[in-house]
Amino acid sequence: MTVEHDCGRMVNINGALISTTMARIDPTDRGFTLGDGLFETMLACANGIRHLAAHLNRLRTGARFLRIPLLITDTELCHLLNRTLIANAFSQAVLRLTVSRGPADRGLLPQILPAAPTILITTSPLSLPSRPVEAVFATTTRRNQHSPLSRLKSLNALDNILARQEAADRGVEEAVLLNTVGRIAETTVANLFLVTEDGRVRTPPVADGALPGVMRAKVMNQLGAIETHLFPEDLLQATEAFVTNALGVRPLVAVDGHPIGCTTRVQDILSF
Amino acid sequence: MTVEHDCGRMVNINGALISTTMARIDPTDRGFTLGDGLFETMLACANGIRHLAAHLNRLRTGARFLRIPLLITDTELCHLLNRTLIANAFSQAVLRLTVSRGPADRGLLPQILPAAPTILITTSPLSLPSRPVEAVFATTTRRNQHSPLSRLKSLNALDNILARQEAADRGVEEAVLLNTVGRIAETTVANLFLVTEDGRVRTPPVADGALPGVMRAKVMNQLGAIETHLFPEDLLQATEAFVTNALGVRPLVAVDGHPIGCTTRVQDILSF
Repeated sequence: MTVEHDCGRMVNINGALISTTMARIDPTDRGFTLGDGLFETMLACANGIRHLAAHLNRLRTGARFLRIPLLITDTELCHLLNRTLIANAFSQAVLRLTVSRGPADRGLLPQILPAAPTILITTSPLSLPSRPVEAVFATTTRRNQHSPLSRLKSLNALDNILARQEAADRGVEEAVLLNTVGRIAETTVANLFLVTEDGRVRTPPVADGALPGVMRAKVMNQLGAIETHLFPEDLLQATEAFVTNALGVRPLVAVDGHPIGCTTRVQDILSF
Repeated sequence: MTVEHDCGRMVNINGALISTTMARIDPTDRGFTLGDGLFETMLACANGIRHLAAHLNRLRTGARFLRIPLLITDTELCHLLNRTLIANAFSQAVLRLTVSRGPADRGLLPQILPAAPTILITTSPLSLPSRPVEAVFATTTRRNQHSPLSRLKSLNALDNILARQEAADRGVEEAVLLNTVGRIAETTVANLFLVTEDGRVRTPPVADGALPGVMRAKVMNQLGAIETHLFPEDLLQATEAFVTNALGVRPLVAVDGHPIGCTTRVQDILSF
């Protein structure tokens, strides 16, 4: 029996549009067996796919680093993404583009040949929660800023899942992840910004474990935000805080039950 | 076109035996999209599956921690494992039992219901490299001892893959992973033991990032090994070193080009 999920009725696997219930990932796919792959989440609306070039650029940077050969061109990828959107007839949607290293024999070291990555495109209806974000500082796990994975949007999401489960247990939506030396890295699905009393907008550097988010770069650029080490007490003392990801910008209004900031002055001027 | 891999012609998915080329993982399976799952690797030979109870026990401990409901009994799992072995007609084989949280809608937080984990069993012919292990200290990444994942055999293997790629680049098979404070944790696929000049057998504690290996426990017990913090210089000065996993025990004879130890006295008395 297949459980039905409303994540788009049609998916695209390696160029073929196929219904979700028929689509097949090979059980030896290293994406499934080892989390060996990457993904991008993108917002699609009437005007097209937001920041598509930046997302594809990040995906390619990650694939090069992991040595997953991505021979398909950006134009072809864009075509596949649009075909998948049209097939699902969403006016607004969340697009997910997943690239795994593909099927392989047992063993950690990737085989050189044959290179046959899996390219999967799925869509979901856009259902943005409109309420502000409340969070906890995750205590279950830490983000490993020593690992290159902290800079890649990889299929290894279990630390984030654990933090998210902790947040739910503690009655809130989101968790702020600290790195292994106790500095703020990001939240489980977003980058974090705060405004200090001097009016400066600050965000953790990538070296502290922040994913180099596409929206993060846009926001940094528009606001002239600076990268600085941030500790939990900096967030608690901020005059304003917000989180950003491909789906947008949301105010962060409480952490561990402490209200954060008092304005949305800075984030209100953002336009994306 | 399907690339053929000799990882067993028949796999078992949720109780059904099916050819690898027909077997299907759902593209929304959280094992594929988020690495949300666990696995065990086991050695099967004429006498049966080695240390099966200990492997199933570790799998259940991990599943409870991740809150993946594993309603199937050990007896049923054992039956599925044996059926898969028989279907592939291997006299000796590597068995892999993978459990993912199963298909789901988009989003990090697992849905409570319906719970439909994916249970996948695959087999591979046993091809143990007989040569001793040479390794490097991984510089690409570190093992995050702050994360509960360091104590689970999860589907998040990318750090280990990166270290393994580094080892291959540097001309050896294996990499020793240090944790975020520079202590030895384990290798990419095995636990590490060393013998110091006083004759004591030592291995890193789980709290330093060592996976609680089934074979590790057996070896610790047989040798009276003690858990102590171990630094790279301890390994370089060891009189003997070896690595252990479900497939066996192998001497570790060099790290970063430096020969390690001079005997296999301790490991030669091991019997499993």
